[in-house]
Amino acid sequence: MPRKICVVITARPSYSRIKTALIAIKNHPKLELQLVIAGSALLGRYGNAVDFIENDGFVIAEKVFMVLEGENPTAMAKTTGLGVMELSNVFYKLQPDAVITIADRFETIATSIAAAYQNIPLIHIQGGEVTGNIDEKVRHANTKLADIHLVASQDAYERVVKMGERPETVFNTGCPSIDLALEIKNNPAIHFDPFEKYGGVGEYINWKDGYIVVMQHPVTTEYKSAREDVLKTLEVINDLDIPTFWFWPNVDAGSDGTSSGIRSFREIKQPKNIHFFKNMEPNDFLKLLVNSKCLIGNSSVGIRECSYLGVPVVNIGTRQNRRKRGNNVADVSYNKDEIKNAILERIANKNITSESIYGDGDAGIKIAEVLANTTLEFHKTITY
Amino acid sequence: MPRKICVVITARPSYSRIKTALIAIKNHPKLELQLVIAGSALLGRYGNAVDFIENDGFVIAEKVFMVLEGENPTAMAKTTGLGVMELSNVFYKLQPDAVITIADRFETIATSIAAAYQNIPLIHIQGGEVTGNIDEKVRHANTKLADIHLVASQDAYERVVKMGERPETVFNTGCPSIDLALEIKNNPAIHFDPFEKYGGVGEYINWKDGYIVVMQHPVTTEYKSAREDVLKTLEVINDLDIPTFWFWPNVDAGSDGTSSGIRSFREIKQPKNIHFFKNMEPNDFLKLLVNSKCLIGNSSVGIRECSYLGVPVVNIGTRQNRRKRGNNVADVSYNKDEIKNAILERIANKNITSESIYGDGDAGIKIAEVLANTTLEFHKTITY
Amino acid sequence: MPRKICVVITARPSYSRIKTALIAIKNHPKLELQLVIAGSALLGRYGNAVDFIENDGFVIAEKVFMVLEGENPTAMAKTTGLGVMELSNVFYKLQPDAVITIADRFETIATSIAAAYQNIPLIHIQGGEVTGNIDEKVRHANTKLADIHLVASQDAYERVVKMGERPETVFNTGCPSIDLALEIKNNPAIHFDPFEKYGGVGEYINWKDGYIVVMQHPVTTEYKSAREDVLKTLEVINDLDIPTFWFWPNVDAGSDGTSSGIRSFREIKQPKNIHFFKNMEPNDFLKLLVNSKCLIGNSSVGIRECSYLGVPVVNIGTRQNRRKRGNNVADVSYNKDEIKNAILERIANKNITSESIYGDGDAGIKIAEVLANTTLEFHKTITY
Amino acid sequence: MPRKICVVITARPSYSRIKTALIAIKNHPKLELQLVIAGSALLGRYGNAVDFIENDGFVIAEKVFMVLEGENPTAMAKTTGLGVMELSNVFYKLQPDAVITIADRFETIATSIAAAYQNIPLIHIQGGEVTGNIDEKVRHANTKLADIHLVASQDAYERVVKMGERPETVFNTGCPSIDLALEIKNNPAIHFDPFEKYGGVGEYINWKDGYIVVMQHPVTTEYKSAREDVLKTLEVINDLDIPTFWFWPNVDAGSDGTSSGIRSFREIKQPKNIHFFKNMEPNDFLKLLVNSKCLIGNSSVGIRECSYLGVPVVNIGTRQNRRKRGNNVADVSYNKDEIKNAILERIANKNITSESIYGDGDAGIKIAEVLANTTLEFHKTITY
Repeated sequence: MPRKICVVITARPSYSRIKTALIAIKNHPKLELQLVIAGSALLGRYGNAVDFIENDGFVIAEKVFMVLEGENPTAMAKTTGLGVMELSNVFYKLQPDAVITIADRFETIATSIAAAYQNIPLIHIQGGEVTGNIDEKVRHANTKLADIHLVASQDAYERVVKMGERPETVFNTGCPSIDLALEIKNNPAIHFDPFEKYGGVGEYINWKDGYIVVMQHPVTTEYKSAREDVLKTLEVINDLDIPTFWFWPNVDAGSDGTSSGIRSFREIKQPKNIHFFKNMEPNDFLKLLVNSKCLIGNSSVGIRECSYLGVPVVNIGTRQNRRKRGNNVADVSYNKDEIKNAILERIANKNITSESIYGDGDAGIKIAEVLANTTLEFHKTITY
Repeated sequence: MPRKICVVITARPSYSRIKTALIAIKNHPKLELQLVIAGSALLGRYGNAVDFIENDGFVIAEKVFMVLEGENPTAMAKTTGLGVMELSNVFYKLQPDAVITIADRFETIATSIAAAYQNIPLIHIQGGEVTGNIDEKVRHANTKLADIHLVASQDAYERVVKMGERPETVFNTGCPSIDLALEIKNNPAIHFDPFEKYGGVGEYINWKDGYIVVMQHPVTTEYKSAREDVLKTLEVINDLDIPTFWFWPNVDAGSDGTSSGIRSFREIKQPKNIHFFKNMEPNDFLKLLVNSKCLIGNSSVGIRECSYLGVPVVNIGTRQNRRKRGNNVADVSYNKDEIKNAILERIANKNITSESIYGDGDAGIKIAEVLANTTLEFHKTITY
Repeated sequence: MPRKICVVITARPSYSRIKTALIAIKNHPKLELQLVIAGSALLGRYGNAVDFIENDGFVIAEKVFMVLEGENPTAMAKTTGLGVMELSNVFYKLQPDAVITIADRFETIATSIAAAYQNIPLIHIQGGEVTGNIDEKVRHANTKLADIHLVASQDAYERVVKMGERPETVFNTGCPSIDLALEIKNNPAIHFDPFEKYGGVGEYINWKDGYIVVMQHPVTTEYKSAREDVLKTLEVINDLDIPTFWFWPNVDAGSDGTSSGIRSFREIKQPKNIHFFKNMEPNDFLKLLVNSKCLIGNSSVGIRECSYLGVPVVNIGTRQNRRKRGNNVADVSYNKDEIKNAILERIANKNITSESIYGDGDAGIKIAEVLANTTLEFHKTITY
Repeated sequence: MPRKICVVITARPSYSRIKTALIAIKNHPKLELQLVIAGSALLGRYGNAVDFIENDGFVIAEKVFMVLEGENPTAMAKTTGLGVMELSNVFYKLQPDAVITIADRFETIATSIAAAYQNIPLIHIQGGEVTGNIDEKVRHANTKLADIHLVASQDAYERVVKMGERPETVFNTGCPSIDLALEIKNNPAIHFDPFEKYGGVGEYINWKDGYIVVMQHPVTTEYKSAREDVLKTLEVINDLDIPTFWFWPNVDAGSDGTSSGIRSFREIKQPKNIHFFKNMEPNDFLKLLVNSKCLIGNSSVGIRECSYLGVPVVNIGTRQNRRKRGNNVADVSYNKDEIKNAILERIANKNITSESIYGDGDAGIKIAEVLANTTLEFHKTITY
């Protein structure tokens, strides 16, 4: 009988971080995939991920609505509590042989608790990295609740072992997002019209001769300044007058701060060089990146995929903090001059190269192999 | 303005583990105590702790009902989820300067999440110990969510630092339960009649000439065998025919397994040498212990207080696993012969001495001092 | 395609009130049964109904754990809120063509809200009766949320129409509990040994020469006096010294008051003439009733089944208030003399006859016919 | 000791429906106001009502975040369940002598259940009206859960009594919204600049020479067609080319359907004659209405306040169904020609007069008097 592997995806961006692993699990003779879509991944205003996922041929076993409105950290905490309750039901029903929780978004700990407390072996993907903020606490707490660790870099491997996890339960598989990046690297041509396919709002921009991409998320513990932070980036980008594709942030306590900042800027300044998208299929998004002059913002895509793709990145603020990064990244603070200068420098820089920090493009396959063959247990004791 | 310190107590036994710290916080000029009583600590059938607490002169700021019935791990998980939701409201309302979560019961992570996600500095008491089971996962996850760590032994101090916490945020204060033990050690005479004061069920037993005490909790991840496990101990104790005070377990997924085992044994065998109590004031309980020949079961009291008091202990099964223990403890498995022989050996042993592994009796004062003077932050990054 | 009919059972006693309708639905070619077991019907300490139900050949589509502990009205309200959340998920998943909510227990409104708010036609069974207390409010609120009404008596039919429901949506089917009573009436011999089959606690009693049955529930809005109330009945029964089968109450805010009253009375008085049961298969229970001299307490069984069976009943207090009753019932208040005299009078009375107030024993069939053929809508407007 | 009256406001529009009663309660020597703000009334994207309420001098006793995201009826149901849980806590804490639930929004039943189940006398405001849809079910269920009924018209009074409520518990106080309308009628001049004070989006419009107002909500049970419905109205209004103030709908399962319809129409058609507002202080809104040529949409303001103010109304669709209306209202279906012709007829009509169907402007005072003097009970039995 194949092992039933339940994967919980709670937000749009987590899907591309895991997609090739889902494919490999689905195709593996010794594994059966139980896919649960939850939280903001189900909500239209954060870019409902369900259609993408179903178009990719996956069957969704359960949908879990759990996002409580509130524009504040209390709602974030309560969403997590509700997630524990809902996911407990789901696992009780699906009876998986193992549950996978992904990375470090606040609500991923709901998956961990619901599995661990029901004595289901818990597998944590992308632990062992370092960022700071609430993500940092959540990621390492996930590690301590998990029985098996599939990490994305050698750096992360060593950190998880140092935290007291048994080495035979930690596997450096690389990051599945690099698998997608590899495909795109091999086949970078853009064969779709972004405006036609994705609509979006704002001016038509002439992107054929070069463009940049922006993706800036609110930083949770500073949510009140989210509006202010995004306005700085907006002003720099507007000044630079380079054709720009701008992506809205995914849900977080402060997302409305960021979103309202963008909305009011658009209304008042009507920037001619920016077109705004809510969402894009992961492959299309990567193609846009690999052909761009630079990515600006604080997305982890800049650290991971762009390092492998060799795309220049201006990383703003503390959100990616101490995550292992390549030579493609320039770090700046929330300062208009710094941001502007870094963008110009990155665009001009000829020395940026591709690096394999987060894997070689076979993470999905490696993950499925571990899931099929490792011992699944739900007892553990710290190694020291 | 004094710092507002919110302490969340979710179960009867946690109260004695923290009581002297509560007193010290209440009396400290730079601190203000906000006491929250939650979970099974509010429920009659697990020995409502509220009356004890109010009799000790504490004001309860909030009561949080969060225990979902279900006699299974799913209910345990959902109780935790509900706890996150309820405690999020409580902290939003009380606006504490710091929140204290205690040890490693499953629902203590609800306190941690509700505080950490709302950017309230989180203080974890009694982290860094080792047991195994779900307690092990919960304890270390609490450590990774917490900003400040007040540990009970040198062993625990070193482990927390090794897990990547900054040494300046870890303090070995000893365990407040030892503070109570010190008082009782200095004044061990029993001036109350247990039957009169606490009722209980079962035969009157002649305890004046020596008696033993039993306290056996279900081990969560094996809850189906809880009934079977407790029956072994019951049979041994019944055979030995030594006067015995037996304490019912506190709530857990399997508590009804243990409880129903005890209930049916009583009904059928009507043991003449055992009297059963639901609960006892902590001081009275310690007096009973210090005057007893031996404690049998799997309570952490056997590891901590009894080590300091020099009371012999037969520790059954894996529940206390790798917790640092003194020379007073004999470990046995769920085997009737082993249990019986260990009890007889312990009672006869003349070499058992008092040890200070978990502090010298001033933990409450030390905890209040740290709370009053340390920097309260809610950002942290792993040290390596 | 058959109509999918989702029936939600939230407590043990509701099962016998609906059982023959479940059979008729299951067997009807135009209907498909979706059976949901929820609330205290899942909990061992209120007599887990799941085994009975599965033994009767039903498949359980979903189990919903929703009982919050707390021994007070707040817990009762929160259990209901949790029920709304959980049952909303269940209906979203099962996509029934209609949902059935039964009678008037506090948590039945959770079923009603979860269905009505999701635009699923709601069918209410046993509306239109009159009792007082919170049951009264819940029952009539269920009527106002429901689209179709299957009532148990002519009296109830007229009341529901008077409340503004369209007559073509109200059907007097009789009560399915009478269907079971008819079977037992036709075949009343007891072929089992109650002690052997159901265990229970208390003395063995010699019941072969005549016995009485007691079933007393706490009255919710007076839960603090539940203990006091039950003690009066216990004393009377103990005095009378007639062999007695006593059944524990099902869950309610005050059930622990009643239960603890019974428990302490047993411990202290050790009544020789009473044997206590937690639960019995509905058919066995009815056989016990039809052969008894009298039923004492406040169960609706006394009003419904016993009226049809012609069993004498002493109905204590306000719980059954204005429910339509037959000549078998004598109403008394919580007064020891009144209770005692009424029991003696009922046992001696030769004029008690069977009546068909709540149907003729074909309610299950009639209910299935309505479900198969009536128009299922979820819009309605009051008739005046 | 004054009676503690707890009023729960769950949405922006409910505030103006109750405001003068809040003032009268606050000022009454025998009453103490406990104001709870919950649900969408706390959320920025539906026009956070908190600032308005605090500016009016009220102290908010509790804020309750309970809106679950999901854009579908399941989320609506679960929001209600969560509301029951949260409000149960709030009433447990505030210990009011009575709780007021307002009208018929889906989540108002959460207030009713949380109060009724905790044996707190429940007062329902604005029962007895008729509309159809889920509002209809909720309103009448609230009536059956409530102990005291403060209705807004003679028509409603008679209906509530007919439903079986005791006449001495039903009071026709009129609607507090008419109290505000009376003030505005006596003082109709607009002394503020709507664009300056409220921002909003869309073109500046020249409203000084006459304008119309639109407010169209989604009809819950048809939420998928909400987008289509609003587009018809948008096209008619755009065609008519009369200066128009358009107000966004408040939250409902389909609000995103309506909102996205408006948003995309704006983006594509860029209507020159419409300015869109999210929200307005109630008084300012009434001034805008009293000076307008016509109100179009399906708001209850058209039925109530506009009847008293004599403002012409084109009421579209079934949302206000059978609510008692004055000569000012023309009812039309979702048909572009009908809507257009009705608007033109209403604007031209000289025979529209003011009517006092919903009171004479002293409802707030009358409500406070009833609250101060009526018997507060939580038991009731239907009258027939």
